[in-house]
Amino acid sequence: MTKLKIGLVGTGYIGKIHALGFRNAQALFPDLPPIELTTICDAEADRAERMRKELGFLYATDRWRNVVEDPELNIIAIATPNFLHHEMATAALKSGKHVYCEKPMGVSLDEACDMADAAARANARTLLAYNYLRSPAFIHAQKLVRGGRIGRIFYFRGVYEEEYMADAEVPFSWRCEKVSAGAGALGDLGSHLLCAAVSLLGAPLEVSADINTVIPTRLLAGENAKQRTVENEDIAHALLRFPEGVTATFMTSRVSWGRKNHLSFEIYGENGSIRFDQERLNELQFFEKDVAESENGYRTILTGPSHPPYDHFIPSAGHQIGFNDLKTIEIAEFIKAISEKSPLFPSFHDGVTIEKTMDAILQSAASRKWVTVDAPIELN
Amino acid sequence: MTKLKIGLVGTGYIGKIHALGFRNAQALFPDLPPIELTTICDAEADRAERMRKELGFLYATDRWRNVVEDPELNIIAIATPNFLHHEMATAALKSGKHVYCEKPMGVSLDEACDMADAAARANARTLLAYNYLRSPAFIHAQKLVRGGRIGRIFYFRGVYEEEYMADAEVPFSWRCEKVSAGAGALGDLGSHLLCAAVSLLGAPLEVSADINTVIPTRLLAGENAKQRTVENEDIAHALLRFPEGVTATFMTSRVSWGRKNHLSFEIYGENGSIRFDQERLNELQFFEKDVAESENGYRTILTGPSHPPYDHFIPSAGHQIGFNDLKTIEIAEFIKAISEKSPLFPSFHDGVTIEKTMDAILQSAASRKWVTVDAPIELN
Amino acid sequence: MTKLKIGLVGTGYIGKIHALGFRNAQALFPDLPPIELTTICDAEADRAERMRKELGFLYATDRWRNVVEDPELNIIAIATPNFLHHEMATAALKSGKHVYCEKPMGVSLDEACDMADAAARANARTLLAYNYLRSPAFIHAQKLVRGGRIGRIFYFRGVYEEEYMADAEVPFSWRCEKVSAGAGALGDLGSHLLCAAVSLLGAPLEVSADINTVIPTRLLAGENAKQRTVENEDIAHALLRFPEGVTATFMTSRVSWGRKNHLSFEIYGENGSIRFDQERLNELQFFEKDVAESENGYRTILTGPSHPPYDHFIPSAGHQIGFNDLKTIEIAEFIKAISEKSPLFPSFHDGVTIEKTMDAILQSAASRKWVTVDAPIELN
Amino acid sequence: MTKLKIGLVGTGYIGKIHALGFRNAQALFPDLPPIELTTICDAEADRAERMRKELGFLYATDRWRNVVEDPELNIIAIATPNFLHHEMATAALKSGKHVYCEKPMGVSLDEACDMADAAARANARTLLAYNYLRSPAFIHAQKLVRGGRIGRIFYFRGVYEEEYMADAEVPFSWRCEKVSAGAGALGDLGSHLLCAAVSLLGAPLEVSADINTVIPTRLLAGENAKQRTVENEDIAHALLRFPEGVTATFMTSRVSWGRKNHLSFEIYGENGSIRFDQERLNELQFFEKDVAESENGYRTILTGPSHPPYDHFIPSAGHQIGFNDLKTIEIAEFIKAISEKSPLFPSFHDGVTIEKTMDAILQSAASRKWVTVDAPIELN
Repeated sequence: MTKLKIGLVGTGYIGKIHALGFRNAQALFPDLPPIELTTICDAEADRAERMRKELGFLYATDRWRNVVEDPELNIIAIATPNFLHHEMATAALKSGKHVYCEKPMGVSLDEACDMADAAARANARTLLAYNYLRSPAFIHAQKLVRGGRIGRIFYFRGVYEEEYMADAEVPFSWRCEKVSAGAGALGDLGSHLLCAAVSLLGAPLEVSADINTVIPTRLLAGENAKQRTVENEDIAHALLRFPEGVTATFMTSRVSWGRKNHLSFEIYGENGSIRFDQERLNELQFFEKDVAESENGYRTILTGPSHPPYDHFIPSAGHQIGFNDLKTIEIAEFIKAISEKSPLFPSFHDGVTIEKTMDAILQSAASRKWVTVDAPIELN
Repeated sequence: MTKLKIGLVGTGYIGKIHALGFRNAQALFPDLPPIELTTICDAEADRAERMRKELGFLYATDRWRNVVEDPELNIIAIATPNFLHHEMATAALKSGKHVYCEKPMGVSLDEACDMADAAARANARTLLAYNYLRSPAFIHAQKLVRGGRIGRIFYFRGVYEEEYMADAEVPFSWRCEKVSAGAGALGDLGSHLLCAAVSLLGAPLEVSADINTVIPTRLLAGENAKQRTVENEDIAHALLRFPEGVTATFMTSRVSWGRKNHLSFEIYGENGSIRFDQERLNELQFFEKDVAESENGYRTILTGPSHPPYDHFIPSAGHQIGFNDLKTIEIAEFIKAISEKSPLFPSFHDGVTIEKTMDAILQSAASRKWVTVDAPIELN
Repeated sequence: MTKLKIGLVGTGYIGKIHALGFRNAQALFPDLPPIELTTICDAEADRAERMRKELGFLYATDRWRNVVEDPELNIIAIATPNFLHHEMATAALKSGKHVYCEKPMGVSLDEACDMADAAARANARTLLAYNYLRSPAFIHAQKLVRGGRIGRIFYFRGVYEEEYMADAEVPFSWRCEKVSAGAGALGDLGSHLLCAAVSLLGAPLEVSADINTVIPTRLLAGENAKQRTVENEDIAHALLRFPEGVTATFMTSRVSWGRKNHLSFEIYGENGSIRFDQERLNELQFFEKDVAESENGYRTILTGPSHPPYDHFIPSAGHQIGFNDLKTIEIAEFIKAISEKSPLFPSFHDGVTIEKTMDAILQSAASRKWVTVDAPIELN
Repeated sequence: MTKLKIGLVGTGYIGKIHALGFRNAQALFPDLPPIELTTICDAEADRAERMRKELGFLYATDRWRNVVEDPELNIIAIATPNFLHHEMATAALKSGKHVYCEKPMGVSLDEACDMADAAARANARTLLAYNYLRSPAFIHAQKLVRGGRIGRIFYFRGVYEEEYMADAEVPFSWRCEKVSAGAGALGDLGSHLLCAAVSLLGAPLEVSADINTVIPTRLLAGENAKQRTVENEDIAHALLRFPEGVTATFMTSRVSWGRKNHLSFEIYGENGSIRFDQERLNELQFFEKDVAESENGYRTILTGPSHPPYDHFIPSAGHQIGFNDLKTIEIAEFIKAISEKSPLFPSFHDGVTIEKTMDAILQSAASRKWVTVDAPIELN
């Protein structure tokens, strides 16, 4: 198999985890083609060089254009702040690269659509990094739902809460600015939950939403105590309608004291229900109606080798995989789809559905009306 | 102290639990005036007499009017299906009785308002049986919120789910008919959750809602296999706005496989958060920001004597009170308010707030617009 | 049916809960014969009179002998400190009464044996108040085990921990004295766990044990700051062997910060396992091997009407019964056994098995040898 | 820094996870010296070559002696069945290598002592792979205990249960033979729990134990249906005494339906208590007495960057590390100790304490007497 050469742009929190994923994908998924950690890029040259050494890349640079246009590279991984996604991704696609990009797609629906168009024109695979789809427990939930194990769906209820901006002392950052981040909690957290919902239920048809910014100003760090207005939402609530009459309650917040990574959803159907909580990512709660009443209750399923691809990591149940393993799974899926030319969710095309839903939520919150989501989608 | 004489109308599920509460209130709350279980009423004379004997009342009757107008009685407890509440309660009030009535108030907002008017005209105390307010864990949550322990409120998220109609084989009953029940899940379950929210946050200002009837017809029991249309909702979702900018997500369902009594809410504020789940009614989850990060997490508080009125039941923590004890607490509170002429929540007056909110939810679901809830309220 | 007249001795913590149980038994279990709360006794005459009024007895007295020998009474309930059980119970039995007595039986094995002898000579029913046997969840666990649902038993693991003496500031009390209490944590808490184990597995055959008193002296309350030596154990650990080769680990402590009522056990067999925790008394965890691996896990069963006698209290699952309800169930079982002359566990005869096991544990801890428990028993 | 060259013997379940750990250690812990995955060894040459390629080693061999004696290598990792540990480890030490060896040490106490002697004679670092010590939650528990946060220890209670041999259909394997495995559940699982206990409490002083083999014969796989006698224990129970009067209950089993990786312990002291469960390895339960009673309860701490070395993996709390990350931490600690010549627990020297305790448990079970553990130890 031909070696796939990787260029990674961004070396922060998630960039480093990208690097680890590329580094480990083939060891854990031996059927993949060989992967070369070729070039790593950071705006600071020193950091780029340091991370190159630490993470095992061959080259370092502080010029992202050199990476995305490098004819030697096959795959570009984008792990930069949201406002850079669009320019980098479209340039990479134009240059014929497969693109793996952090979510959300950009800072506006226009950017997202443009990225999807660029992907459609390119002969390349794209993947958005909605990594929580890769939990073996989530994958099993998906299998149960798609396999009809809970029957016709009655409704969905989901929440994604974190506390990272709950403290009013947390300073103003790029995450608070529309031009750099686009949406607030909705883009950073809610998009993950929407992606999970879309993968289970299809594209939403319409939404009614409400948003709130409960800490309206924050201190600009490093400057002389100036307060700046937070431009996007701390909290978003929404009602959603999905195909086949499925209704849903949705909620996301970045100001939730006590919640570290509370991506949690429940899905109820005519024959049972399923509950998932990313704070216990190795567990799944499953209830089936057809058990004697006196003995029935939610089963706490601990993930194990019977929940692929857990088996690629550890041969025994209950030992648990972690967040970084999800990223490795995601990257392995991407490489596999490239190598097998097989479909993959969520591509840039699919991502537009999520972006349109977010856009509709923000529109609905502004207009205080139900808003139609125009987002046809085919799930693979 | 003068003895208070009780007339109880209705001897089904909840009527029996009323009787036990009246029977035990004074033994557990010795400061209360004496209570006499005077008259019990059921539409079937035989059953009335049997329940009289079992539950220890002095008299039995199958004529409810004789009870609510009996000049010997001081308190009327109404534990009948919803469509009877209005007529019974207004008659009892007219006859000068204190009235303790099951929720929701009636089958329409008009009935509810009329009941509140009757209460206003009467020189009597009223109480609606929103018994979940009486959990010591809930009372403690209330105390924490009101005492400012989580600071300014950021948002509320609540759900009340049960599975009692999840099976499509559950036959059509009075609960499915507008004329007998009014709303569906919203009236039976959601009203409890709204009452909890109102007691914590005040009256909602406006709502946007969606409802669904996922099992649209059910077989009429006892008849020749005829399907009847279910007239009210199996599921209701809503966004709510409360005073002081508090937003909320709300959801209720009677078709939730796996959920037995899942009245659960979370409330997040600037200094912490609180989680409550009626399926573990003796527990409360509390998170405070001011603990060292490495040692912080939700505290699982087990109720005990430091959470009044738990101490009236058992002198040790962790032993747990049960649902029927909540009813005894509720009745004791009612008797106390009568005897001390002290305020009590939720009276018929307060109940109108809940009914108006439910009405607004149904209106919003029909009009697909935000609807203002016109419900000023003073919490005691 | 003839009315059963009750004499209750002791009006403290548990005495009051006895009274409530007798008060409610017939209302909740209508097939029982009528019960009269006849005489209540407390060593303080004032308190006796006050409790008479509060709890609804006809007569009050401060002379327990007058109660246990009163020819009008049928049942004597003993809710006094341990050192009084023997004298009161044997006198009551001699006087022909049925005796319901708090656990443990007395302050020594000799007392216990003497009580059992007195019961054997009398034509009367006896019941020891091991109330945790009455949890519907526990009863269901018993049914699963006895019905062979987990097959041949592999082992048992149990613990009963509370924190009521974890604070070194808790003063010396009768519980710390051999002459008043007999054993320490073992008698107060461990005996409950042993009773549960015996009811599931039969009488233990032999034990190896270790005990510890981690707070060796405590201040005598109300006196001038004198430290007294605690005479019994704060903690007991034991290995037990039951019939048919079942081994077990056992542990009890009264000095366990964080534990309010942690009576918890797990039982593993060839086809599954069961877990119970009294701090969540309305739940049972059940695992069966014969479920597809990818979908299997402990089922969290919430008690409901399918777990008798829960149905006598509330017609819906998940609403939860409480500690005081367990006491009512226990009393109802006692009354029923009297009225139907049916067997009942644990009688004074059965209780000797528990006392012999406790005695063997203390002997083993002293001799540091395995000690045989000489306690043949027939479970009903 | 000089490059450290690794030779790995064994490529099964845990061998592969070793390889991943060595592969990632430096990327996650950049201060470590560089690591080279030099030689990988499996008894089957084909497999060795395949794993070489998959896991990224330079050389493959089927001759372990060539590895442990290769003068180019610095570190030997031993991931073979127990009966091979002794010969491989002593040869490696003799050849001057640092040795990282799977637990338990060998198949007998003699082997273990001999390994420790070899380590003492060699100028080399040794580490036993008790990987559960590396959970950030466990490390935090250790810090709390050692920092006096729960004060003087009252007692310890621990269990390690899995279900991997609960099914009587699981065939006979090397794990069932004394000559290949040594002890049964005790060696495979219990040793982990003992190691955790020793690291928290010091070396045990004496034990009383009981063991059981509940499935006494198993079918020899691959042969003509012959049953073979299982030679070691399925279950071990023990009472332990640690220094300073700390008592403990201990239990391990490999036949526990429903348990996947239930390494769980609780430790109670004069000021609080701590609970840990490896099935939720990213959580720690902590109770401190000095919180107002009405607000106190176990805190569910989710691990995060404030629990090193979690921060090396992910910058946000609640995202969770997994089992393979524990192995990477372990390997990083080993490399660091080699490079800094700093102490490390548990070395072969420390391991003898665990082996002596296991030996004492087996002796006690055989003699049915308390057995002294002769195992002085200094914890670093």
